[in-house]
Amino acid sequence: MTAALPATEPTAHAERARRGGRAGKRAGGAAAFDQPVFRQLRNPLKPTPFISEDELEHIHLASLRVLKEIGVDVLHEEARRIMKAHGADVRDGTERVRFDADMILELIAHAPSEFTLHARNPAHNVQLGGDNIIFSQMASAPNCSDTDRGRRAGNQADFRNLVRLGQMHNILHVTGGYPVEPVDIHPAVRHLECLRDFVLLTDKAFHAYSLGRERNLDGIEIARIGRGVPMEQFVREPSLLTIINTNSPLKLDIPMMEGIIQMASHGQVVIVTPFTLAGAMAPVTVAGALVQQNAEALAGIAFAQMVKQGAPVGYGGFTSNVDMKSGAPAFGTPEYMKAQLVGGQLARRYKIPYRTSNVCAANSVDAQAAYESVFSLWGCMQGGGNFIKHAAGWLEGGLTCSYEKTILDIDLLQMVAEFLTPLDLSEAALAVDAIRDVGPGGHFFGTQHTQDRYKTAFYQPVISDWRNYETWAEHGAPTAVEKANRIWKDRLASYEEPYIDPATRDELNAFVERRIAEGGAPTDF
Amino acid sequence: MTAALPATEPTAHAERARRGGRAGKRAGGAAAFDQPVFRQLRNPLKPTPFISEDELEHIHLASLRVLKEIGVDVLHEEARRIMKAHGADVRDGTERVRFDADMILELIAHAPSEFTLHARNPAHNVQLGGDNIIFSQMASAPNCSDTDRGRRAGNQADFRNLVRLGQMHNILHVTGGYPVEPVDIHPAVRHLECLRDFVLLTDKAFHAYSLGRERNLDGIEIARIGRGVPMEQFVREPSLLTIINTNSPLKLDIPMMEGIIQMASHGQVVIVTPFTLAGAMAPVTVAGALVQQNAEALAGIAFAQMVKQGAPVGYGGFTSNVDMKSGAPAFGTPEYMKAQLVGGQLARRYKIPYRTSNVCAANSVDAQAAYESVFSLWGCMQGGGNFIKHAAGWLEGGLTCSYEKTILDIDLLQMVAEFLTPLDLSEAALAVDAIRDVGPGGHFFGTQHTQDRYKTAFYQPVISDWRNYETWAEHGAPTAVEKANRIWKDRLASYEEPYIDPATRDELNAFVERRIAEGGAPTDF
Repeated sequence: MTAALPATEPTAHAERARRGGRAGKRAGGAAAFDQPVFRQLRNPLKPTPFISEDELEHIHLASLRVLKEIGVDVLHEEARRIMKAHGADVRDGTERVRFDADMILELIAHAPSEFTLHARNPAHNVQLGGDNIIFSQMASAPNCSDTDRGRRAGNQADFRNLVRLGQMHNILHVTGGYPVEPVDIHPAVRHLECLRDFVLLTDKAFHAYSLGRERNLDGIEIARIGRGVPMEQFVREPSLLTIINTNSPLKLDIPMMEGIIQMASHGQVVIVTPFTLAGAMAPVTVAGALVQQNAEALAGIAFAQMVKQGAPVGYGGFTSNVDMKSGAPAFGTPEYMKAQLVGGQLARRYKIPYRTSNVCAANSVDAQAAYESVFSLWGCMQGGGNFIKHAAGWLEGGLTCSYEKTILDIDLLQMVAEFLTPLDLSEAALAVDAIRDVGPGGHFFGTQHTQDRYKTAFYQPVISDWRNYETWAEHGAPTAVEKANRIWKDRLASYEEPYIDPATRDELNAFVERRIAEGGAPTDF
Repeated sequence: MTAALPATEPTAHAERARRGGRAGKRAGGAAAFDQPVFRQLRNPLKPTPFISEDELEHIHLASLRVLKEIGVDVLHEEARRIMKAHGADVRDGTERVRFDADMILELIAHAPSEFTLHARNPAHNVQLGGDNIIFSQMASAPNCSDTDRGRRAGNQADFRNLVRLGQMHNILHVTGGYPVEPVDIHPAVRHLECLRDFVLLTDKAFHAYSLGRERNLDGIEIARIGRGVPMEQFVREPSLLTIINTNSPLKLDIPMMEGIIQMASHGQVVIVTPFTLAGAMAPVTVAGALVQQNAEALAGIAFAQMVKQGAPVGYGGFTSNVDMKSGAPAFGTPEYMKAQLVGGQLARRYKIPYRTSNVCAANSVDAQAAYESVFSLWGCMQGGGNFIKHAAGWLEGGLTCSYEKTILDIDLLQMVAEFLTPLDLSEAALAVDAIRDVGPGGHFFGTQHTQDRYKTAFYQPVISDWRNYETWAEHGAPTAVEKANRIWKDRLASYEEPYIDPATRDELNAFVERRIAEGGAPTDF
C-alpha cells in the first residue's frame, strides 16, 4: 500500500505555524487551533469496480453511439467551427454536432492523467489525478445559514467568512468557487471582488466561473498576478480551475464553451461535469443516466483537447436521482453511490482525473445531513475520486452553505483522511512485548508503550462528543450542530490574512480597480 | 459481479404479504407498510484489503507468538482438560494455557466457511459466510430511550417492543440478543422469558447469552422447540447463536468457555469476539490491538473445534480506540474503520465468517450518531463483514437502545442493501433510444421510458426529507429524529405476532413454565 505523502509545508512555513503568535497567525490562522497539517492526501485503497469490464464497455460504447447517432447541440459558433475543423460532423444552419468514436478517443487520449494545481503559496500546491485526493470547499450556494441568524441570501460578508474558514482549515485544499453567492455585489463586478478576495484571503488554488469570456480572462489574469509569475510560465502551470456543467441533456451553451476555450488555451483546468439527474435531465435508469453523463463529459473533454492538446481536464460525475413525486433532486442516495463508483471506473478507463462530490439533500444539520454526506464520501473514496467538490458546507441540495455544516464536514473529511493513512506495522506497533508485559487480565492504560504514544495515537475529533451520557446531560445535552456552531465562531475569530508580497497586492488592486472602472463584465448571461 | 439473491419468501408467504389484511399482518406486521422484501443480502463488491498480504502475515505470526509465548488464562477447568488433551501446554496448578501454531491452524481449518442459520420460519433462514450479509438487531443495552419518554432502564415492555420492531422489518435478519436488558424480570428466569418471547414475537433466528451452562441448554431447547425439529436434526442445523467476548487481555472466563462447550457440542453458532479497545484492554496501537484480537479469537475458535470438529463459528472483530483523556470507548472512528478492514482480511485468511458492528458513541440521535454509524457501516461493507451485529438501535457506545435510532438505522441498512444491488445494464436500461427520443434540451420526466419505471426506479427512504426548504419549514422544520419518532410509533401499532403452530406454542410454554417452576438458572455469574 502506498504511503500518504508527508506534509508539504516548507520548513520556514511550518516553523512559523509551530511558533504560533503573529507570524503563525499570518498563515491564515491555521496555527490558532489543533488540526492535522496540510498535506497531499492519497488514497492507498484501490477503488472498487461496481460493474465488470464488459459492463463498463457497454456504457462506453453506448455513449459513443449517443455522440455519433444523436450528437449534441453546441450553441457557440466558434466552438462549432473548431469542432468541424477537427473532423466533427457539423452541418450549416444547425447547432447539432456529431462525433466519430475514433475522433473522440484520439482527442481525449491527450488529456494528462495527473498534474499539479499551483497555489500562490507553493506549500499549498496539490496534485490532481492518480491516487491523489483534493478536497474543495462548497461552491455556488445562493443562500447561507447558521443557527444564530438562520438562513439568508448570500452576501459579501458571509462569502468572506466562509472563504476564511476554507483558508484556515488544512483539510480543505482548494477554494472551489464562491461558497455563497454574494448577491449584494453587482454582477458586473462580482467576479472581480470575489477573485480578489480569493487571492487576498487565501493562499490556496481557486476557481473561476465560466460566465462569459471576460470573466474567464479576468480570472486568469488575477490568478497569474496572485502567483506572481509571467504568463508564459502561468500557461504551463495549471493554477485556476473551472467547472463546465453541460446543459443536460446534450447541450453545450455559449458561456460553457467560452470557458473551455479561454481556460484550455491558457493551460488552466477544465472539469467537465454533466448535471445528469436520473428521471429529469437524464434517463430514469442509473445506467442510462451514466451513458448520457459519459457522452456529455467526453464531448466537453474532447473539445478542450481540440482547443489545446494536453490541456489539463477533469472528468466530472454528478449523476443522482430525483424524488419521483416532486422532482426534487436527491443526494447521498444508494443510486448516487452507484453512479459515483461507475463514474470512477469510466474516468479511470480514460485515464482522466475524477471529480465527484460530498452532497446531501437535508435542510438542516441533522442526522440526515450527516448520513447523506458520509454516504457521499463513501462513494467518493470507494469510487476513487480525485477532486472532491463541495467537500465542506453543502446543505439543501446545494441551495445553502451552512457554517455549522462546514465545520461538521471538516471533521468528516479529517476522519476520512485519517482512515486513509496507513497503519504503523512496525515490530513496536505490533506490540507483542507490550502484550507480554501486561499479561492476561492486565490493563494497558499506564504502560510505557501507551505512555509513549497516547497523545498522537488516535484522531482527535472536532465535533464528536465522547463524554458519557450523565456528563453530557449535565452539560446541557448539546447536539453536534450546537458544538459546530461554537467552533466556527471560535475559529473564525482567530483568522488572519495569509502573507502576500506588497507588490503583488498592489498589482492585484490596480488590475481589479481598473476593471471595475471599466464596468466589469457583461451581465446578459 | 454476483447478483444478489432474489427474495427467499416462499410464494404463499409473499402472497399473504401482498394481500395484506389479517393474513398479511400475521407475518409480524411486515406487510403493514412499504419496505423491501426479506432477502438474503450479498455483497457483490470485493472487500478492500487495507494492508498487504505480507503485512497481514506479520499480524498473523505475531498473534501465534502471543499464543505460544504468553498464552491465555483459562478459568474453566474442564476447558483446560480439553485443551491439554488436544496438545496445548497446560501445567498443573496454573490457569495459563499456551498453544502451538500448528495446533491452532490445524484446528481452525475445520471451521466451516459458510453455513445456513435456520429460523423457525424457513423463509427467514440466512447464510453466514462467503459474500453473504446478515443484519442483526442491536443487543445488550442496559437502557432504552425514545424522545417522548427519555432514557430509562431496560424493562420487559420495551424489550418486547424492540423485538417486535426487529421482527417487522425485513432488513433485520436476526434477533441478535436482548435489544435492551429487561431488568424488571428476575435474572434467574429472565433468559426463559426472553427466549420464549424470541420464539413467539419473532420467527427469525435468534441469540442466547452464554451466562452459564443452564442458560445455554435452555436456549438450545427453546430454539429446538421453536423450530419443531428433533434434537438429532437440530444439532446438524445451526439455529441459535451466541457471542463469546473474551476477557481481554488474554483471559477466557467460565461462562464463556461453558458457552462454547454447550453451543459447539450442539452444533450451534459461536461467534468469538474479543473486546479489544486500543489503549485500554489492548495495546494503544491499532496493529497491536489487532494482534491481540486475533490471538484471542483464534484461541476461542480453536477451542470450539476441539469441542466439536466442524462446529459453526464466526470471527468477531470489535477493536476500536478509547478517548485517551477519559478512557471512554469511541466508535465509528477512523481507527475503528481500519480495524474493521484488517479484521476482515484476517477472517478471510482463515476462511471463517466475519462479524463486525454498526456502532457509535453519540448520546443522541443527532449528526454524530449518523456519521459514526455510517462510517461503521462503510467499514463493515468495505471490510467484507458477514454478520453485522448491533445493526439497528445502538446509541451511547452500547449503553442505550433507541427507538428512533432503530428506525434511522433501518433506513441506513436499507440504503446499504440498495447500494449493493447490482445495476440493470440491459439495452433498455442503457436507454440510448430514450436519449434519442428526448434529444438535446428535452426532459425525461414524462417519457414512456420514465413512466414505465418511475415507481420502482429508486430507493424510497424512510427518514430522508427531500422537500424543499420552504415546504419543509412550513411544516415545522422537522429533523430526522422527529420523523423517526413518528415512524416507530406508527409501525409498532400495526404489529401482529407471526403465526406459530399451536402444538409448538404449547410445548414451548410447558418447557418455560417447568423451568421457571424449577427456579430457572443460577444467578451467581
